[in-house]
Amino acid sequence: MTLIENGAGDAIQALKDLYPYTGKAHIIGITGPPGSGKSTLTDQLIRVYRGRGLTVGIVAVDPTSPFTGGAILGDRLRMQRHYLDAGVFIRSMATRGHMGGLARATNDVVDVLDAAGKRVILIETVGVGQDEVEVVKAAHTSVVVMVPGMGDSVQTIKAGIMEIGDLFVVNKADREGADRAVRDIEMALMMNPPGGGWAPRVLRTVATKDEGIADLADAIEAHRRFAEAGDGRARKARERAEHVFTELLRDRLARRALERAGGNGSLDRLLDQVTRRETDPYTAVETVLGKLGL
Amino acid sequence: MTLIENGAGDAIQALKDLYPYTGKAHIIGITGPPGSGKSTLTDQLIRVYRGRGLTVGIVAVDPTSPFTGGAILGDRLRMQRHYLDAGVFIRSMATRGHMGGLARATNDVVDVLDAAGKRVILIETVGVGQDEVEVVKAAHTSVVVMVPGMGDSVQTIKAGIMEIGDLFVVNKADREGADRAVRDIEMALMMNPPGGGWAPRVLRTVATKDEGIADLADAIEAHRRFAEAGDGRARKARERAEHVFTELLRDRLARRALERAGGNGSLDRLLDQVTRRETDPYTAVETVLGKLGL
Repeated sequence: MTLIENGAGDAIQALKDLYPYTGKAHIIGITGPPGSGKSTLTDQLIRVYRGRGLTVGIVAVDPTSPFTGGAILGDRLRMQRHYLDAGVFIRSMATRGHMGGLARATNDVVDVLDAAGKRVILIETVGVGQDEVEVVKAAHTSVVVMVPGMGDSVQTIKAGIMEIGDLFVVNKADREGADRAVRDIEMALMMNPPGGGWAPRVLRTVATKDEGIADLADAIEAHRRFAEAGDGRARKARERAEHVFTELLRDRLARRALERAGGNGSLDRLLDQVTRRETDPYTAVETVLGKLGL
Repeated sequence: MTLIENGAGDAIQALKDLYPYTGKAHIIGITGPPGSGKSTLTDQLIRVYRGRGLTVGIVAVDPTSPFTGGAILGDRLRMQRHYLDAGVFIRSMATRGHMGGLARATNDVVDVLDAAGKRVILIETVGVGQDEVEVVKAAHTSVVVMVPGMGDSVQTIKAGIMEIGDLFVVNKADREGADRAVRDIEMALMMNPPGGGWAPRVLRTVATKDEGIADLADAIEAHRRFAEAGDGRARKARERAEHVFTELLRDRLARRALERAGGNGSLDRLLDQVTRRETDPYTAVETVLGKLGL
């Protein structure tokens, strides 16, 4: 998995070899703003799934490392109580290299866990950026975690996040404002009804006290069954394939193009011209695309 | 600028035409976690710069729209008091389309403001993701805004963010823990000394009370003068050209490749094969690259 994260050549052959064995796991994305208790919730979900006899893979994605840190580190350490359980595999991933690379590497790690036979794969994202949205697109079921008092009105829950979530969780639901938060999310869902026939549910949890976690696991299971009925499963599998493919293509294309175009210092000369304003970036890119016959 | 954000063809010719007139503005990136008061700080900086007779362009980037909202909307509205001032131009940008597109569009909008003669351009990012890091790379001077009580120890201030910042601001410095925050950042800087000879400073501000803002503007000016002495300015200009070029190349390459490879349904067939596990994503991408002669 380290090889995968680093984008090593050896890893690619391994990924090709194991790909036929993928496609069996149920992939669950868990996302939400910092401080919403995602890691504790994930930790409790692991426990519930293990209690139900299912093996679990966890990919903890942290593209926001610059600003977060202490609290998350603590949460991650808490999750380590599962490290001795052979039915649980936890992999933390941080941003490295260029944008897009993280989504690509996450997809690859999910494939490894899937091929290794993990029945449930939890992708937990830390942070609130576009990276997370990309990561969550690779999941079969997406859980959006919020906390009371975050949004003070329906307007604060924007359409973007309502489109992502198959399930919404108000965690820390023993805090003041939980009813309001549930109502706000339900209102927002009414104003932005999702397509596809699935009616997203809003659940309450107190992850630190293990309250509502089994219900959440049941709701995830209900969504899985819904998605697998009819053409939902096939459609999602296709969407996921398209997403994984596109991420990989973007990653590879840029690398290959820069290698090709960079020969005998021509890329350097082009960049010098852009720097001196002798040419503009759009024309420079067209030059490279032209050289590549694109 | 709306054309630019949408990536319209008309906009590209305009960007090519105006590119020779760019390169004069001082571009300042302002980043930091939600709630650190970046918008208020930006608002106060606008006032200081206007008082010094400089025209100002502001690009407010919000890739995190799903989770943020109310508070930021309020901050943005507050900034509107500058809307009647012809020496100030404010442009808000939200995520649209694919990752990378935002960094590309931000660079383009900065170029428009630069060519239009704005002497200072403030890029304010909302959120804490990799998107922001990319955006900040396009700035001449990067200001990282933090608040007391965020990090409880030096370990929480990771190397990533220390590398980004030319200046660090502890905003809301009238709150408890400000001394500690300043000390923690200084410690982290000692542990991760930046290259290039510039010694990043840690400043205190209370943006809501206009405390420390003029000092911050002075520190930004000092960094500009430092960067422009020696080869700093040329190096930064080259870095920026390379960054802008690469973002644009990634964006264009993927679009062009998918158009080419998608002809007569061949891309669809390839994705069907990946979905059915008859081929793996890596081999599929290699097929497309091969077809494109890459």
